[in-house]
Amino acid sequence: MVSVILLGAGNVASHLFEAFYNAENISVTQWYNRSLKKLSSYKNKVEITDDLNNLKAANIYILAVSDDAIAELSKQLPLKDQFVVHTSGSVNVYDLDKKHKRGVFYPLQTFSKDTSMDFANVPICIETINKSDYHILKELALNLGSPLKKVNSEQRRVLHLAAVFVNNFTNQLYRIGHEITESQGAEFDLLKPLILETAKKVQDISPYMAQTGPAKRNDKKTIKKHLNSLESLHHQDIYNLLTSSIQQTHGRKKL
Amino acid sequence: MVSVILLGAGNVASHLFEAFYNAENISVTQWYNRSLKKLSSYKNKVEITDDLNNLKAANIYILAVSDDAIAELSKQLPLKDQFVVHTSGSVNVYDLDKKHKRGVFYPLQTFSKDTSMDFANVPICIETINKSDYHILKELALNLGSPLKKVNSEQRRVLHLAAVFVNNFTNQLYRIGHEITESQGAEFDLLKPLILETAKKVQDISPYMAQTGPAKRNDKKTIKKHLNSLESLHHQDIYNLLTSSIQQTHGRKKL
Ligand SMILES: NC(=O)c1ccc[n+]([C@@H]2O[C@H](COP(=O)([O-])OP(=O)(O)OC[C@H]3O[C@@H](n4cnc5c(N)ncnc54)[C@H](OP(=O)(O)O)[C@@H]3O)[C@@H](O)[C@H]2O)c1
Ligand SMILES: NC(=O)c1ccc[n+]([C@@H]2O[C@H](COP(=O)([O-])OP(=O)(O)OC[C@H]3O[C@@H](n4cnc5c(N)ncnc54)[C@H](OP(=O)(O)O)[C@@H]3O)[C@@H](O)[C@H]2O)c1
Repeated sequence: MVSVILLGAGNVASHLFEAFYNAENISVTQWYNRSLKKLSSYKNKVEITDDLNNLKAANIYILAVSDDAIAELSKQLPLKDQFVVHTSGSVNVYDLDKKHKRGVFYPLQTFSKDTSMDFANVPICIETINKSDYHILKELALNLGSPLKKVNSEQRRVLHLAAVFVNNFTNQLYRIGHEITESQGAEFDLLKPLILETAKKVQDISPYMAQTGPAKRNDKKTIKKHLNSLESLHHQDIYNLLTSSIQQTHGRKKL
Repeated sequence: MVSVILLGAGNVASHLFEAFYNAENISVTQWYNRSLKKLSSYKNKVEITDDLNNLKAANIYILAVSDDAIAELSKQLPLKDQFVVHTSGSVNVYDLDKKHKRGVFYPLQTFSKDTSMDFANVPICIETINKSDYHILKELALNLGSPLKKVNSEQRRVLHLAAVFVNNFTNQLYRIGHEITESQGAEFDLLKPLILETAKKVQDISPYMAQTGPAKRNDKKTIKKHLNSLESLHHQDIYNLLTSSIQQTHGRKKL
């Protein structure tokens, strides 16, 4: 049994709480947030607190708070030689105060408030400064049914950067698809199965192999037609840049 | 029972053949391609031909050939007043020779050779010049279990353009994620669940609502760190352009 104290009450903390609460060999000893408002609806399931001086003993303290708050909160903790981890993709493990045994428990996934998450689909990237703390993170991930990967701070930073491309930027392309269709009398909904299939394809084959379309074929006639029918200059810029990116990747043209 | 003659032997024709072959109320009378090579392995399942003068009678002739070949092939067909459709997202219905009854049967999905396709996930966009031909396309889609949508040539063109953004360009962002991770010692595989979840999210909520990340939060520190750690100028350009696109959408900044 691993005993956990959670700190923070945002997206990640909430999903972790639900997952820990339902896992067999994990008990959540206490849940802290700087204000009790977001925690009060959980008070029948777990002890809640807004006072750091009330923190109990546990095998691990998980800081699931905003990146900018991690260093400061870890300093404020009235603990010594306890195992303290954060959940961020971009914060260095050494940003945690050195009075703690330090580590990282980074769930490489996108969480949002109202959608539930199957942790089998959440790779956990873990790092510890002391080898001897590793088994605690491993047991947490195993009990959640999550894939587990040892990743150092540098690799984690790279993954987080790549995640911006495949998650935030991809989502913005969906948004542009939405703008183009709805502003010109077509239905965005018709694109949804294509969006899903595009993501499924690269589960099995590389994005390189999966590429198709006018840019890859260097179909100049279609590219020109597309550029002419894009009403927004800004969409044209994105069309041009990603078209030449595809052509660079597939050897059609030097940039 | 709808009788179909397929023309072309590429990705779309092959997937359509499998789906029609397995559907209850559709029979494939004949399958034409300009060379028999790609068809010969099917010769026990269907009559194959490479001679347009051998074409039989059927309820519908489906031209699943390259966009550039559609007009010419439709002209060459030794038919008159038969129902002839193409499967393209970007070719006008009037590009088919006017000696035919004309229509479009556009499957809005990405097909590739070795992956099978569940046609329940393939919205079919259909168009006919004569109302009376509509029911044939409807029966085909119904028998495949595909969602069906009446879409005129202008709307189809817009959908095809939006598909380039959500499919080809998105796939290129996956490719860049691949380049960034593998060139800097991290594993692309760890991003795959995130890629899938990003696509799943917009099945239920709008891309606008689904957006997260440093660009949306206008987190200048992280954006600067990311730009500094991108080794390729070209990746930096894409990072900058899509970051300002997100900020424009979410009112952070005028472009
Ligand atoms: N969201 C994701 O998809 C995701 C995925 C992987 C990793 N992460 C990482 O997980 C961590 C938490 O992210 P999140 O999305 O859960 O954030 P969030 O939803 O914005 O929640 C942030 C939490 O941090 C608390 N907080 C902020 N400043 C604080 C301070 N100065 N002192 C104490 N608490 C403070 C907030 O308290 P209040 O409730 O009082 O405001 C809130 O509970 C971040 O490091 C993030 O990078 C996020
Ligand atoms: N691929 C997709 O994901 C997708 C999705 C929706 C719609 N579409 C549309 O479906 C149609 C077919 O696409 P596809 O991906 O199946 O193409 P493909 O795999 O490249 O196959 C093209 C087929 O067209 C034939 N062809 C090319 N030029 C010809 C000519 N001059 N005369 C006769 N036949 C000719 C080829 O014959 P050979 O076998 O002899 O080379 C081949 O069988 C296109 O209109 C495309 O826009 C494609």
